[in-house]
Order: sequence, then structure tokens, then C-alpha cells
Amino acid sequence: MAKKYVYYFGGGKAEGNGQMKDLLGGKGAGLAEMTNLGIPVPPGFTITTEACNEYFKNGGKYPDGLWEQVLENLKKIEKEMNLKFGDPERPLLVSVRSGAKFSMPGMMDTVLNLGLTDKTLQGLIKMTNNERFAYDAYRRFITMFSSIVMGIDRMKFEELLEKKKEEVGARYDSDLSAEDLKELVEEYKKLYRKEIRQPFPDDPYEQLRMAINAVFNSWNGERAKTYRRLHGIPDDLGTAVNVCTMVFGNMGDNSGTGVAFTRDPSTGEKKFYGECLMNAQGEDVVAGIRTPLPVEKLKEKVPEAYEELMEIYKKLENHYRDMLDIEFTIQEGKLYMLQTRVGKRTARAALKIAIDMVNEGLIDKKTAVMRVDPEQLDQLLHPMIDPKAKAKKIAKGLPASPGAAVGKAVFTAADAEKWAQKGEKVILVRLETSPEDIGGMHAAQGILTARGGMTSHAAVVARGMGKPCVAGCGDLNINEKKKFFTVKDIKVKEGDYITIDGSTGDVMLGQVSLVQPQMTGDFATFMQWVDEFRDMGVRTNADTPKDSKVARKFGAEGIGLCRTEHMFFEGERIKAVREMILSDDVEARKKALKKILPMQKKDFRGIFRAMDGLPVTIRLLDPPLHEFLPHSEKELRELSKEMNVPLKILKERNQALHEFNPMLGHRGCRLGLTYPEIYEMQVRAIMEAACEVKKRGIDVKPEIMIPLVGHVNEIRMMYELVDRTARDVIKRKKVDVDYLIGTMIELPRAAITADEIARYAQFFSFGTNDLTQTTFGLSRDDAGKFLPFYVENKIYPEDPFVSIDTNGVGELVKIGIERGRKTRPELKVGICGEHGGDPKSVEFCYNVGMDYVSCSPFRVPIARLAAAQAALRKQMGDMSKSTV
Amino acid sequence: MAKKYVYYFGGGKAEGNGQMKDLLGGKGAGLAEMTNLGIPVPPGFTITTEACNEYFKNGGKYPDGLWEQVLENLKKIEKEMNLKFGDPERPLLVSVRSGAKFSMPGMMDTVLNLGLTDKTLQGLIKMTNNERFAYDAYRRFITMFSSIVMGIDRMKFEELLEKKKEEVGARYDSDLSAEDLKELVEEYKKLYRKEIRQPFPDDPYEQLRMAINAVFNSWNGERAKTYRRLHGIPDDLGTAVNVCTMVFGNMGDNSGTGVAFTRDPSTGEKKFYGECLMNAQGEDVVAGIRTPLPVEKLKEKVPEAYEELMEIYKKLENHYRDMLDIEFTIQEGKLYMLQTRVGKRTARAALKIAIDMVNEGLIDKKTAVMRVDPEQLDQLLHPMIDPKAKAKKIAKGLPASPGAAVGKAVFTAADAEKWAQKGEKVILVRLETSPEDIGGMHAAQGILTARGGMTSHAAVVARGMGKPCVAGCGDLNINEKKKFFTVKDIKVKEGDYITIDGSTGDVMLGQVSLVQPQMTGDFATFMQWVDEFRDMGVRTNADTPKDSKVARKFGAEGIGLCRTEHMFFEGERIKAVREMILSDDVEARKKALKKILPMQKKDFRGIFRAMDGLPVTIRLLDPPLHEFLPHSEKELRELSKEMNVPLKILKERNQALHEFNPMLGHRGCRLGLTYPEIYEMQVRAIMEAACEVKKRGIDVKPEIMIPLVGHVNEIRMMYELVDRTARDVIKRKKVDVDYLIGTMIELPRAAITADEIARYAQFFSFGTNDLTQTTFGLSRDDAGKFLPFYVENKIYPEDPFVSIDTNGVGELVKIGIERGRKTRPELKVGICGEHGGDPKSVEFCYNVGMDYVSCSPFRVPIARLAAAQAALRKQMGDMSKSTV
Repeated sequence: MAKKYVYYFGGGKAEGNGQMKDLLGGKGAGLAEMTNLGIPVPPGFTITTEACNEYFKNGGKYPDGLWEQVLENLKKIEKEMNLKFGDPERPLLVSVRSGAKFSMPGMMDTVLNLGLTDKTLQGLIKMTNNERFAYDAYRRFITMFSSIVMGIDRMKFEELLEKKKEEVGARYDSDLSAEDLKELVEEYKKLYRKEIRQPFPDDPYEQLRMAINAVFNSWNGERAKTYRRLHGIPDDLGTAVNVCTMVFGNMGDNSGTGVAFTRDPSTGEKKFYGECLMNAQGEDVVAGIRTPLPVEKLKEKVPEAYEELMEIYKKLENHYRDMLDIEFTIQEGKLYMLQTRVGKRTARAALKIAIDMVNEGLIDKKTAVMRVDPEQLDQLLHPMIDPKAKAKKIAKGLPASPGAAVGKAVFTAADAEKWAQKGEKVILVRLETSPEDIGGMHAAQGILTARGGMTSHAAVVARGMGKPCVAGCGDLNINEKKKFFTVKDIKVKEGDYITIDGSTGDVMLGQVSLVQPQMTGDFATFMQWVDEFRDMGVRTNADTPKDSKVARKFGAEGIGLCRTEHMFFEGERIKAVREMILSDDVEARKKALKKILPMQKKDFRGIFRAMDGLPVTIRLLDPPLHEFLPHSEKELRELSKEMNVPLKILKERNQALHEFNPMLGHRGCRLGLTYPEIYEMQVRAIMEAACEVKKRGIDVKPEIMIPLVGHVNEIRMMYELVDRTARDVIKRKKVDVDYLIGTMIELPRAAITADEIARYAQFFSFGTNDLTQTTFGLSRDDAGKFLPFYVENKIYPEDPFVSIDTNGVGELVKIGIERGRKTRPELKVGICGEHGGDPKSVEFCYNVGMDYVSCSPFRVPIARLAAAQAALRKQMGDMSKSTV
Repeated sequence: MAKKYVYYFGGGKAEGNGQMKDLLGGKGAGLAEMTNLGIPVPPGFTITTEACNEYFKNGGKYPDGLWEQVLENLKKIEKEMNLKFGDPERPLLVSVRSGAKFSMPGMMDTVLNLGLTDKTLQGLIKMTNNERFAYDAYRRFITMFSSIVMGIDRMKFEELLEKKKEEVGARYDSDLSAEDLKELVEEYKKLYRKEIRQPFPDDPYEQLRMAINAVFNSWNGERAKTYRRLHGIPDDLGTAVNVCTMVFGNMGDNSGTGVAFTRDPSTGEKKFYGECLMNAQGEDVVAGIRTPLPVEKLKEKVPEAYEELMEIYKKLENHYRDMLDIEFTIQEGKLYMLQTRVGKRTARAALKIAIDMVNEGLIDKKTAVMRVDPEQLDQLLHPMIDPKAKAKKIAKGLPASPGAAVGKAVFTAADAEKWAQKGEKVILVRLETSPEDIGGMHAAQGILTARGGMTSHAAVVARGMGKPCVAGCGDLNINEKKKFFTVKDIKVKEGDYITIDGSTGDVMLGQVSLVQPQMTGDFATFMQWVDEFRDMGVRTNADTPKDSKVARKFGAEGIGLCRTEHMFFEGERIKAVREMILSDDVEARKKALKKILPMQKKDFRGIFRAMDGLPVTIRLLDPPLHEFLPHSEKELRELSKEMNVPLKILKERNQALHEFNPMLGHRGCRLGLTYPEIYEMQVRAIMEAACEVKKRGIDVKPEIMIPLVGHVNEIRMMYELVDRTARDVIKRKKVDVDYLIGTMIELPRAAITADEIARYAQFFSFGTNDLTQTTFGLSRDDAGKFLPFYVENKIYPEDPFVSIDTNGVGELVKIGIERGRKTRPELKVGICGEHGGDPKSVEFCYNVGMDYVSCSPFRVPIARLAAAQAALRKQMGDMSKSTV
């Protein structure tokens, strides 16, 4: 017997349910669940994701039994609706929609009104007694089928439509008469035949088969692939296909269609929030062609349907215990629910909804913590318009995605990407966005559109990305071709600065100053809950007292990486550093180092004070010495004068320090071993600072970290040097300061021989930036030539510098921890690469048993949340999203 | 009860035996063995290496019981010899010698005549009735004790001696009278007191204790440590101390001392071969102060002792079944054996002795194969300086690639090629070489550089080519522009003849005559035996038909690495290659590639023919493209003219291709993925060549290798490209050629994810050069700044580019093989890094289960021998020297 590939829903009962997202996709599962809840859903059926995967496995052929099951289920619908597919009297029309496990807005293609042919059209006219409506449905169907299923440029149909409107002097589509539309249908069919060299299919079953194929194939379309790549969704999930009885929102003024959220997706306010269009089909709302009405307007227009909608949304929210995004259609006053799913929301809304729902008793704190996407939290950490700033507001659109952004106006996605690569901050300005713009939206600081509502493509995608977005700003006259827009008498050209505020919808001229957000209120409450469930530490990477203070405010529990070399560049210090580097012998070097010591000490004192009571991991000098020397002729000449060293000597020294592969060169502990006096000075500065602040009552916990260890002998010799120097300082200063000595694990050999290295290292900090470079043999500085190509083509599933490569680099991390702890069970282990602020990588770190992660100050809250979620996920035994 | 730290030998019986080298050292074990064989050895005892290690562990104190055991064993000697230590009547004198497990000639210090004091001197005079002899012994003892035990400069004693000789008009030491010597003794003691601020010790027990300490301490002396480092001897073996009754070779004309080999150590001839000095102590022979006599002279002088010596050496050789190095002393006509050990020998002698001994029935073939040091075999594979030739040495550099070469000095690679084409033999002299010089290096007889170490470009490439190379010869002042170099006041101009010896580092003026290696006779016999026991393949790294032929003569069983890029530099080809690189688009690139295809194909045909019946692994393009472009302004200008491409464009392209870390950059399969047309052309060239030669009856076995794979998706996509192209060629050419597709494993990630990669790779070839670079995070090009320091200070136990780092890189290799074979049990595994020619690494490769090693042509015999020895060692279960 063939596998079950098709699940029916209708008549108050569904074969599937809301749990079956893997098999039925989000949309299919929602339709089944709603049906089971007794909510009015037009009957239909869902073709499983399994069928889709089989289809691809078979090279584009249906698996055995699929088509038969489709026909059987069509019969069920016919029976329930008392209609017949392809019938010239009472024709059944259906919609065909995709629906994958994860919602992918705008990414998949939908065909409405399927089943219409010249023959069934007559039935539709009879049934509705509305010729105009029937022809309108027909011309829409031909357009959708031709463009989505057959790949004909939609614009060609739009042109015919516009031409027709001109011909007859119609302003809106709705001004066209039945006769006009009838002619249009003929023109459409002619166009189809010209493009495809086949007549438009007049067999509804053929139409259905082709539409199902199109949905399947769209799973591997470029747009879908890009979306999956950006959102880390696996390629092998497949999509389901939902075939659903058509209901019509365009059957007159008591018909309509809409989308709504059970709470405000922007603020989280507990208030039904939606938009609708009367006498329209769903595609009109999503496309943002007409500006929609607030959903409350339905109360006047179709009061019964409105009341029912109110009941249904409450029922649904109580059932799902989450904020939902719903789609509905009203056909001649009767309400049908077409979709329900968990609604996307801003970070601010996510926090508020989570907290409100805990207070309402709908969910517990654990669920609340799991409800917020760590990456999304970033939105709350973004700058806002400084309230005191003077800004010249020139227009106002919809506050589609919160946060403020400043940048130069660009008018195409390609330009956005190009300019961003050059380091420019840009605002992408578009009439409306489409899925092809995703790359440019990523590259931009913010998005500004002239058309579309809160649920338009631009708005939805921008919120997902956490990018500020002002949508539907109708005041703008945008000329995308000539690259400028005007508002009244103001003209903004490509490259002119503008500022947008996605929280208010304001568009401003020039660069307006921004301020940091407040970390109080909902944010503080939520983060407190987060910490209740978190059992892995979160530290920060900070090199200055200022950064340390900021990070501590964000909840950092110490410093995981303090890079001493960054201090070397500050102000006058670089001179002493250069003197040190240019010294010929140990004595001259020591003399220069003596000048640097008090400067370093001062920094350390400040950092220790900011981190009172918390551990501070300080890495000794890491980069190759040539990084501190200038390279251009001009700079060298200046330096020569300044330092009173002949230019020739400077050049020779520069040349001698040159390296072919500085990444693999004379750096890290290799410097410490060959120039022990440098590390000695640094340890002295750290320990003297520690002793001095301790005398003033500061609880100081220095952890001294040796970089680039690859062999046990390196850490053995460096341990001895550091320990000897530290003891000496303590003896002289007569203050006892506890300190740890440890190492970065950033070379494959260090991970492989971690058992040996742990003999001398009291802690490990995985430097996964460099570990990724050496494990892959991939220079970050040079990867621009092929890494984008690799990520684009999924040769690497993800950019390994963004999210840790669990199979390769991660495997080395696991080996390193296992072997290290075999020698020293109490070994403290953390990570200080940039991965420490990436939620997926944080979960990995948690699962391999790290004691802490360390990340940049602004990502500390994200890491805290990711760590709490990792702990909860483990606790709940939900390994489905685990990265290990 | 205390541990047994002291082993007695004497009276025809010893407590130890010849097997106990670990505990008694080589010398002590030999003395015990000889005693047990009934050979006359002066009685004595050996203090164990354990005692030495305990001494260091205790911070320079004797372990419990050691001194008591020394005293007990002294008593045994006294009893046997009827002498008494410190006795004024019949004083016992002893020698104190070091003796570690491995012979370390000249590294350890010996004290003779110990026990002499003013008091015991009188006893010695009485016993010998020879005042002069006694005082001579005394002054020698004071000299040795003062210099070796107390560290006083020996020269100061020599000066007093010379002064005395002058005073009394003596020509030789032996011209000094007893009275002269007596005065000298007093002066010596005065010198001692002045230097040490203590009188010379007059207690023999005190002398003994101090001497034992000195032997122990010499284990950690700089000379010993350096020797151990150079010979890979572990530091924790410790040395034994041999205390032995003194016998005197300086008691008159029927006394003497000598050293001898049981066969000729230079030629291997079966002939007792030695030297002796009459009326002398051992130190005189070793020091080379007097010219010794051939050992046969003893026949006249002390016929009985000579006869006995003849019997003893035969007995010993029969017993040890090896060529021995012996030391003896004749005291007033009576022979004493002082030492026996396996004798060092030249490679030529090693072969002859091994073969002769098999023919004599002394040893079996397995033993013969184990007797020759693979590294030593190198001597036999290159031309050598004729030992009889007179040579004017002018400088010394690093012995970077063995063999001697004669030629006219040239100073650019282009000149080398030009001159060579005219039939001139040239030596390429460069400050340092770079990849552009490869053509010139090929054309030259040998390479001489002023900069760079054993792993510099010149050294690595020369070894690969089997060209003699002297690198890092800092004495040379090279003027590449004006084409000459100077050393002190010598000037060598372009065209002047020079000779270099890459085995020693010597640079000589003029044409020194050379001797060519013989690959026949003993060598052929021996290598045939080697192959009888070898069960791992040995292939070669060869890029040209010529190299392939050479390698096959050396016994290569295929090519393990054929680098296609080296072919790119040859002659006119580089132009087409540059055209390809400078192409803006795929079409232009394809056009240029079309020109390269026939050139590559021609090479492949030649290589396939040379390797008829054997597998040939061809690596597709690996280095970053910028390596093929010239870099100097002048060269760029020439290229611009030649190619008719504006200089500006050339410069831009050069700039665009520049990489910060080319080692980790856009190379290997990253090129193949981003420019598939390059690999396609190469595969086409390989397969077309294969099909064409197969049509002519050649048995061709191409193995196509993808470089720098780090992710399964890379090999998957490259496998598809190669396979598709290969099938296409086969189809067009209508010849079926079997081929394999595999990959280099040269990145840590490749080793870690070898299970995934093996899904597509049919073979693995470990590229341990690059794997070492990435595992250590160590650029070979830049390591010169600290690697010598690291090796010198034993931070790395060995240069990891010379011998594979078993703990780190080796561990990754093991992981890679295990995981790879888990997916594909029949996976073919080899190594093609330079380690493939290093005996220790070859043993490692054998023990981790590789199918073959691949090395440069000239190292093939070395690898064959190393592989056979590894197999035998494993078979014999002797894991003591195993590297895994």
C-alpha cells in the first residue's frame, strides 16, 4: 500500500493537527488545528513535505500513490461543498499554497482560483450570478498561473491590464466592466500561448498537477534558498502543499480579506491589531498595492463576521498560548479563517508579550524565556534618535520595524551591497521591496519604502532582521531609475544622508544623532528571568575601563578577553612601543618597556576597578611586531624624524619584520619566548596594578593568558616566567593577590595536545577566530575572494566566522576540552572568539561543557539569553535544535 | 635495603652483561660482557644510569646507599688486585669514565690515574720503580682532574708544560726528566690553588667523589645536550660511570695503547684496522698529539700481546656479530681491553659489512637490513667530492641538500637557464630563491644562497629536485645586480668556477673533482634484500618525465605527487598562464587555457610513459595565482609589452591578487571551485594524455588529486567536475582508462572530518608540509625568525618540518586515517609531504597503516630502507624505537 501523502481537513475534523508541522508544514498544521477547534476553515487537504522530498528524490516525479490520494481528497471536498472540480455547473475552485515547517514570508508562491477554465467559468457565473466577478477571478488566475507556475513575467500581464484601463478610461481595476475583463482574458490567453507555445490548460486536473509541481519546485527557487541560508533553515525539510476550497473576498462590498495579529506585533500591546481590504483577494493585501484599512473597520461593514473574528482570535490565542498572525477572508459576510501561525514580532513586543502572558497565567517563565529570539534582542540594543537632537522631519511613513538608522540614500539593492562593501552606511530606499532585495536589505542600515503596510514584504523582513524600517511612506516620489526622491520641494539624491526612525515612521534629512536605549523596564525584568535559568557564565571582551563599565551594565560577569595590544596604540604610547620594537638589543628594549609599563598599569587599574569582584582575563601581547610600525613612506619619514632614527634603519627593520603569512608568523607566545622582557613587563604591569587596587579595597581576580600556545613546552616556559614575575611583584608589594595562568586554545595542535598543555594551564580560553582560520586554512583577511562564493553556494553551510563550524572546529574544541579536563578535571574553560556572541555557537559552548562565553559588550544580553535557552533546552530534553 | 646502584666486573665474572645498556651504558655493558667472555679487562665497577637520574632528581645529591656501594666495590677491586686505594705502599689507581646508553664520542669527560696524591705517589714509585713515570702520571692526573672536574682551562696547564720544556730544552714531553716533572707537579698544584682557592685534594676518596659528580654533571653539559639534540637522544636516559683499575700504556717501550676496528670503517673491507701509540696513555691517541702507528706494528713490538689481540677481536666480532670499535692498553707486554662497542662506519662500509657478514653466515638478511642507517644511505646517492682532491674552501653554509656540484657561478635564474641551454654547467648563486627561480634551479648543477635555513625555499626545492644546495651562507656578500660575490678578499664573478658540497656546506673555489655514485654491486644487492622485507609502497614526488625516470631507477613504485604548477613555469608556457590569470572573464580564460592544454598534455604523456604500469598521482593546480605573476616594476613593464596589456591593468590585477596570508588564501580547490575551467582543462589534459598513451600500449594508472580540501562539499563538487570531464574524454577518445579521484589531506579540518570526505575521495594523500603549517599555525616562509630558536632551545623537540610531529600533526594523521577508513575501508592512504623521505616519519607512516610514502627521487632508496626496517621492527615486536 502506498504511503499516506495527503491529509484532509474539513467538516469540523482534520486528519492532521497542530503538532504535525514537520509533515504538514506550518500552514497545513494550523489549518488542521483550526478545523479541529471548530473554527470555520474552507475544506481542503495538505500534501506532505515527505511527498515533496520524494518528488525531488525521484528527479521531479510524484511518488507512487500521491496523485491517487489527491484525487480521493478532491472528491471529499466536492462532497462536502456540493461542488465539482471541472464542473460546468457548480465548479469547485481551489487555492494552492505552499507551507513549509518554518514560515517563509514572500518566499513561496500561491495560486488562487485554480480550476477555472472557459467551461467552469460559466458555472461560476451561474453560481455567483456575477459575470464581472467571475471574469475578474479568471484573469487573476491566468496571471498567477502564468507567472508563478509557468514563469512568464508578471509585468506583461500588468501592462495589458494598464493598457485596457487606459483604453476604457478606468482609474482602478474595479472600474473595469465584465466585458473589459472578458477581452482581457482573451488577451491573457493569447499572451500565454505566445510565451509558452501551448494553449492555456483547459483541464483543471492538469492545472492542479502543474500548480503542485510549481509549489514543490519553488522550494528550490533562488529566493527560497536565499531565505533559508539567511535564516539557517535546512534544505532538506521540503514544503507541504495546501489545496483549499476557494473563498472570495472580492465578491462585493460585504466581502473582504485581511491579516491580523492577536497583539500588536510592534509594541506587544494586548490589542487585536490588523488590516483588511474590502472587496479584495488576499494577494492585494500582501502586495501592498492598495493601502489597507484597520481591522476595526469591519465592525461597521460586516458586524457579524467581525464579532466572530473577535471570538476566534481569543480562542486561538488561548489555545496556542502565543501571539498569533492570522489570515481570513469574508465572503459575502461569512468569515473563513485561511491561516494561523505564531506571529513575528519586534524584540520590544516579544518581551512585552512574554511578560504579559506570564502575568496573565498563560505561560510560565521558562516558556517566556524561550519565546524571545536572542538574535532579535539586538534590536533593543540599537541606538534611537536622540530626543534632544534637532531633526528636520520631511515625511512620515509606517513605523514598520523599530530602531533608528542613519545612512546615505541608495536606490537599488545592488547599490546597497556595493556601497556597504566599501564601508559606507546606507539606507535602502525603494518603492516597495521584493524578495530579490534581501541582500541589499541586509547590507543597509535601514529600509524606507513608499508603498505597502505593516505587513508588506519590507516590514516583515526588516523586523525579522532587526533592521529599522519605515514603510508605506506615500509622500515620497521615488525615481528608482534616476536614483533620487522628492518630498514636496526637497530632493534627496543618491549619496545624500538621511535618518529614519522605524519606531515612529519619521524620515529626516541629514545625519541625526542617536542615543543608546534604556536597559530597564521589561528588558530588566526579562533578563532577570533569563539569569534564573542560566548556568553558564557570560563575560565580555573589553580592552578599556570604559568598555568594561558598559559591559558590566549589560550583565557581563567578568572579562574573558582583554587585549593588551590595543592599549599600545593609544595616544603617545605608540611611540614608546615603536622605540621598543626598533631596539637592537635587550637593554635598549628594556628601557623602552620601562616607559610602557606605567601606561599599561594605569589601564589595568581602571579595568580592575570596573570589574571589582569579577575575574579579568588579560592576554599578553599577541600580534606580530610589524603591526605597530607604519608602512607608508610618508609615515616612516615622519617616524624617522620623531624618533631620531635614520630612515634607512627604519626601513631595514620594517623589511626584516615583514612576513609572508603574518597570521602564522612571529606572534603570540613566540614573542614572549624570544623577547621574554616584553611579557615580563606586561605581567609586572598587571600584577602591580592588581596589588595597588587591592590595597584600596578592590576585589581583584587577574587571569593571565598566554596566546598562541601550540606546544606544552611553550606554556611550561611561559608559566614559569609569569609565575616567577607575579610572585616577585607580590613579594615586593606585600599584598597577596590570587591569580591564574592559562592559555588561549587557538591552534589545532593546542586542542589535539590539550592533555599536555593542561599540565601547566589553569584555564583554557578557546580563541575560535584563529582556530577557525588554522583549522580551515582560511585567512579572514583574504577570504573575501572566495568566502562569499562559498557561502552563497553553500559549500560552507554557514560562514564559519559567524557561527562555529561544529563538525570541524567544534570537534577540535570538544577534543580540547575532553583532553584538557582529563589532565586537570577542574580546568576552567571558556571561549573568547566572536562566536561567543552568536546564539547558535553559545548553545554549542554550553553543550560541550564550557564554564563561560565571552563576547563584545553589546552582545552580552544576547549571549545571556542564548545560554539560558541552551540550559532550558537541555533540561527539556529537546535535542531537536541542539547543535551538538 | 638500598637499591643496587653499582655493578662489579672482574676475575672473569661480571654482575652485569652486554644486554644491560640502559642501566650500565654502552661502555659498562661492554666491559661486563667482555669480562664474562674471559677477555682480560682491568677489574672495576659501573655506577648505573639510575643513580645518575636519582642524583639529578635529588638536586645533585647521591641517592641512599650509592656511596656505600662504591666503597664496597672498591674493596673488591683492592682484593682482586692486591692493591689499596690511598695506600702509600701499593696504591690502587682508577680511571673514571662516563658511559651512556648511546655512544656520544668526545662529548663526555674521562679522568685517568685517579687516586694519586703526594702520599700514594711514593707507593707508585716503589711499585714501578720508575720515578719519572709516576710523576708523569701525577701531572697528567692533575691536569685532567683540574680541567674536567674543576673546569680550569686546560691551556693554562699546557702553557706551564711548554714553558718547562723550553726551560730545559726538551723537544717532546718524553724528554722531560723526573725532576722536571716533579717541579711541574708543584707548579700545577699552585695553579690549582690559585684558581680554586683550595689546595689540590689529597684524599683519594674525595677525588673519586668529585670525579663521579663531574661525570654526572657532564650529562647536562652544553656539549652533551647539543649532541643529544642533534641525534635525537632523550634527555632522561642519564649516564653511567665506569670506575676501572688503571693500567698504563706509558710504562715504557713494551707498553702502549690503541684503538681499532674489526673491519675497515671506511670501506668495510674485512681487515683488522687500527692505530696505536707505544709508551702512551689513551688520551694521547684520541687527542691526536702524536701520529699513531698502524696496529700491525704491535706484532714486532709486543708479539704476544698482538697475538692475543688478534684472537680477542675475532672472538668479539663472532660474539657480537658486528663490526666493533675496541680500545686496549698494553702494560709491560700484557694486553688489557678497555672498551668495545659497535663501530661507526661510512655508508659504503655499512653495506659491504652487512653483505659480507650474511655471506659469512654471521648474520641473516633481516639483521643486515637493520644494520644500515637509512639517513646514511643518502651519501651513496649523490656525487661526492673526490677524497683525494685538493680543494680551496672559502666559506661554509648550511648543508641544505646533499651532494657536490661544480659549475660556473651565475646570479639570476634566467642566466642559469640561458647558460645551461648553451651547454654550460652552472651554480645558481642567489641571496635567496623564490618560486620564479625554479626554472633556473632546474637548469643549475647546484644552488648556493646567502640567506635562509634548512627549510628555506632554496633548500626545500633543491632537496625535492635532488640538487646539491648550500643555503644560508652568510659569509657571502652577493651583488646580484653586478653579478659577483665576495668572501673576505676573494671575489667570484659571473662565469668563475666554484664547487659546492651540499652534504657538508662547504663552498670551494674552482673545479674540484667529483666521484659519481654507483647504483650497482653492494648497493643493488642490499636494496634487493630491503625490498624482500618491505610491505609498504614507496613512490616519488616528480613533476617531469626526466625526474620520473630518475625516480624509477631509484626504485619508485609510482608517483605520489606530480605538481602540475611547476610545469606552468617552463619556457614559453608562463606567458599563456599569465594570459589566463589576467583574463577578465570565463571566455577569455578558456581561450588562454586552450593554449596551455597541449603543453600539459605533452608532459603527462611523458610521465605516463616513464611510469608505465605504475600509478601516477597528479595534483591539480594548487598555488595562489599571484605566484605566477612577476612582482618587480621592471618585470611587469616587460610583461606589459610582451602581452600587450597596459601596465596599469597589470598592476591592478597584481594588486587585486595580493594576499595577506597566501598560505591561507585563494588556492587549492578554492581555485577549482571559483574557476572550474582551470581544473577542467587540467583533467582534460591528464585524461587525453592517458587515453593517447594507452592506445600505444602503455599501462596507465592516473590518480587525480584535489588539493586543499577542508570540507566535504569541496571534494563532492570537485569529484563531480573531475569525473564528468574524465568520462567525457574517455567517451570521445573511445579508450577505457581506469582512474581514481582523491584528495590531499593537508588541513586540520580535512583530517577531523575525514569520514565525510572519504565519501567522495578514493584516496587520501597526507600533505604533511601544509598540515604541519596549519596545525602549528606556523608559516614555513616566516619561521626563520623563531624556529631555529625553538629547535635550539628544545621548545620543539625537533624541527616539525624535518620529522613529523607525532603528538600533534601525527595525531591528526591517525584520526584522518581512522575516520577515512571507517567510511571507506579500502581507502588508499599515502603521504606526499617531505616527511615521506624522513626515516623516522616513514616508520610513523608504516605504524599508522599507510599504503605508501612518496618522496623526492633521491630519497626513494632511503624511504625503501626505512620502510623495510619499520616492518622488521614491528615484526620483531621491538617497540622500543617505535615512534607511535
